[in-house]
Amino acid sequence: MAKNFTSRAEDYSKWYNELVVKADLAESSGVRGCMVIKPYGFAIWEKMQQELDRMFKETGHSNAYFPLFIPKSYLSKEAEHVEGFAKECAVVTHYRLKNSEDGKSVVVDPDAKLEEELIVRPTSETIIWDTYKGWIQSYRDLPILVNQWANVVRWEMRTRLFLRTAEFLWQEGHTAHATKQEAIDETEQMIEVYARFAEDFMAMPVIKGLKSANERFAGALETYCIEALMQDGKALQAGTSHFLGQNFAKAFDVKFTSKEGKQEHVWATSWGVSTRLMGALVMTHSDDNGLVLPPKLAPYQVVIVPIYKGDEQLLQISEEAVKIKKDLEKIGISVKYDDRDTHKPGWKFSEYEFKGVPLRIAIGPRDLENGTVELARRDTLEKETVSTSDLSNKIANLLEKIQETLLLKAQTYRDDNTHHAKDWNHFKELISKDAGFVYAHWDGTGETEQKIKEETKATIRCIPLNNKAEEGKCIYSDKPSSQKVIFAKAY
Amino acid sequence: MAKNFTSRAEDYSKWYNELVVKADLAESSGVRGCMVIKPYGFAIWEKMQQELDRMFKETGHSNAYFPLFIPKSYLSKEAEHVEGFAKECAVVTHYRLKNSEDGKSVVVDPDAKLEEELIVRPTSETIIWDTYKGWIQSYRDLPILVNQWANVVRWEMRTRLFLRTAEFLWQEGHTAHATKQEAIDETEQMIEVYARFAEDFMAMPVIKGLKSANERFAGALETYCIEALMQDGKALQAGTSHFLGQNFAKAFDVKFTSKEGKQEHVWATSWGVSTRLMGALVMTHSDDNGLVLPPKLAPYQVVIVPIYKGDEQLLQISEEAVKIKKDLEKIGISVKYDDRDTHKPGWKFSEYEFKGVPLRIAIGPRDLENGTVELARRDTLEKETVSTSDLSNKIANLLEKIQETLLLKAQTYRDDNTHHAKDWNHFKELISKDAGFVYAHWDGTGETEQKIKEETKATIRCIPLNNKAEEGKCIYSDKPSSQKVIFAKAY
Repeated sequence: MAKNFTSRAEDYSKWYNELVVKADLAESSGVRGCMVIKPYGFAIWEKMQQELDRMFKETGHSNAYFPLFIPKSYLSKEAEHVEGFAKECAVVTHYRLKNSEDGKSVVVDPDAKLEEELIVRPTSETIIWDTYKGWIQSYRDLPILVNQWANVVRWEMRTRLFLRTAEFLWQEGHTAHATKQEAIDETEQMIEVYARFAEDFMAMPVIKGLKSANERFAGALETYCIEALMQDGKALQAGTSHFLGQNFAKAFDVKFTSKEGKQEHVWATSWGVSTRLMGALVMTHSDDNGLVLPPKLAPYQVVIVPIYKGDEQLLQISEEAVKIKKDLEKIGISVKYDDRDTHKPGWKFSEYEFKGVPLRIAIGPRDLENGTVELARRDTLEKETVSTSDLSNKIANLLEKIQETLLLKAQTYRDDNTHHAKDWNHFKELISKDAGFVYAHWDGTGETEQKIKEETKATIRCIPLNNKAEEGKCIYSDKPSSQKVIFAKAY
Repeated sequence: MAKNFTSRAEDYSKWYNELVVKADLAESSGVRGCMVIKPYGFAIWEKMQQELDRMFKETGHSNAYFPLFIPKSYLSKEAEHVEGFAKECAVVTHYRLKNSEDGKSVVVDPDAKLEEELIVRPTSETIIWDTYKGWIQSYRDLPILVNQWANVVRWEMRTRLFLRTAEFLWQEGHTAHATKQEAIDETEQMIEVYARFAEDFMAMPVIKGLKSANERFAGALETYCIEALMQDGKALQAGTSHFLGQNFAKAFDVKFTSKEGKQEHVWATSWGVSTRLMGALVMTHSDDNGLVLPPKLAPYQVVIVPIYKGDEQLLQISEEAVKIKKDLEKIGISVKYDDRDTHKPGWKFSEYEFKGVPLRIAIGPRDLENGTVELARRDTLEKETVSTSDLSNKIANLLEKIQETLLLKAQTYRDDNTHHAKDWNHFKELISKDAGFVYAHWDGTGETEQKIKEETKATIRCIPLNNKAEEGKCIYSDKPSSQKVIFAKAY
């Protein structure tokens, strides 16, 4: 498999594109900018969904489902919101096809034109707040803590599998609260949940922070984000949580009667992560031999490959393999036993290495004699022959160790690629060679931010939460600054 | 809650519509024909999804995801398929909005017209077979056993919550096989899975059968279905599994090299159930007091309501309630403890009765003294006071019994409402009073079927699998018939 596979050093972007397709994660479809998520890739996404869904429910949220379509007039109700999304909207204008006059094809039926166009949801704040209006009368109806797993469409011009696609899958939480503080607490709670998920399951360290005003979600008062660093020194925004203030409540006239009997507008948050996380996962851990998966998100954590000649040997090895599989499954480890006779062991080794299966077990006739198996770690490519006694525990420990090692390695990479810009030249040099996260003083204005972006392509990734107060001068304008923020080129 | 609630006898249709909204299952949205599935309703759908997904995986299927949009030309490739869906297609024609000239609103940007229109998927055979073309070269690539959980859109003119909506949620399995027999086996396996799900989880008895040619899926050679009987004597198609032959493989030119080295077209199936099952569930069990849920699909199976005066009593009762809750959760029973002080016990009783919680536990101060609790079954409305010793087991048994009772009751109802038509007058009489499933001889022609439909509104629900061979004469045409088929008016 690793043949004809571009290395990261050669062309990082090409390496990524090839990896996603060759590891059977996703591929482009016949529809511009829309991807097909293949079964192996989707199994990883399902694992992500399961864990996130559990975390959402543990923090009191329920799932619901809102319409795919948003009437154009709804989208227009919040001024900044429509401004942010209007340029990338897929618009439904008709509801019927008919046979063409020559009978040879089907055409859009001009008589079936919608009175009002429908937008395929790019995000659901508007349709949801239109719905919440009917759900909220009194403080007793609050908070509403709802999440939706859904597909959304943003008509992007340049697309890349998982990272930027016209249609993508995501979850969007939409909550309603009686007080400003409660909404802010919710916003912060959810960015914590995302950070915990990224680190504990994806083994991907992230920095939590606030977006600058320029980079905020369209319609938000404050956007919290988690930012990760990819192996090419570029940043990737992996999740966002928005404090929406009363903007949508005002746009959709959603008020409640407080305990004190007053009519007040409701406070809102929204938060989401998407299939973009798949891209982040790939780019955080994978190497020139293909995909590397953290055990907690691998569709199967262990693969067993028999090495045999003839049916009798296979039968003997299979007996042992099936026993090992059952023992592992008993303690919650997922295992694939690949006894296909259509492929040789060497081919299977490459295949599972390329697909990032965390641990491979090989069993040959000599292993049977000696009561051993060969273990091969995907992350370090280390092999060792171990006794089968207490094998399940050994493997459970090894999987934990792999998970830890991946996180540690990614943390070390990030630390090694985090810099503090001393002056403007130093800053430009760091950015020009994609050196990673660059801490720098900034005067806090959108103008400076914009100019830095124009001159270097670097954007403010975030103002880290609990940032150190540091007096200094803006790297670009020399104006006073009280803290450093993080710059990087980004996906 | 049950106040202002229409009874079934009064107006079955109104009863259903009110129930769905008042029990917090779903509601209409601001988008014509599209519903909002509310958290309580969605929790039931999630339970259905979990069980179905497990059953699909146990039968070897994996999930994947395909684009929401289908290029118009794809839809047109299979002639019957496009004929079946063209009249209800939501069509995306543009990909951008812009400010209107007066700056007061947003309008569709005429410069952003798509070269080829995109259809919002009404079902995914075409986009999936276009994809499979790239996945299949040799017999080694077969079978492909893939399922997708997705939203689909069919622009229906008359819609009803869950039963018929413009957008709905479903799963669609799409499999590819090397032989005709294997594809037929798969089609039959999946209708069995659906039947088992309906009976074991929904407690809804179904009849498995084949659709007549008129009622087949557009593009299928054979459609298998499960048919259930609702409490108003109307039938509801609850799931379908289609043997597609080589139609889509031919339309999309999908061939494989067989073991013998020949190029052959691939054989296909597709199968699906949708949020329509929610409507079926409601109409199978619910009564004039509201929703009735089978324990296996209830968001919470048990609700505990404390009956108390003052904080001290509440504290004592809560201690007991929390203990009971923990004990039940240990054995996998889901429990809600409602200790809200904003509502009285009587209000809570009505609320949970209306929402169909299978079992209610009430605990008052006298119960504490006596070591008892009051149990109330939702299905029979029976109450009994029982000792708290061995309570978890008693409740586990009771929940099983409720599940069984619901199935039995529905089976009895169906048996009582299944008839054999002696002659045309008898047939018309049975159908005119919505008497349920009507077995009748049919000459096997589409013409007769059509005429019967025109004259009585009854359709052939199915030709039951393993149907008894019975010589007779068609109820309508007097022509010879070798078996009876099932007629009914249907949702």
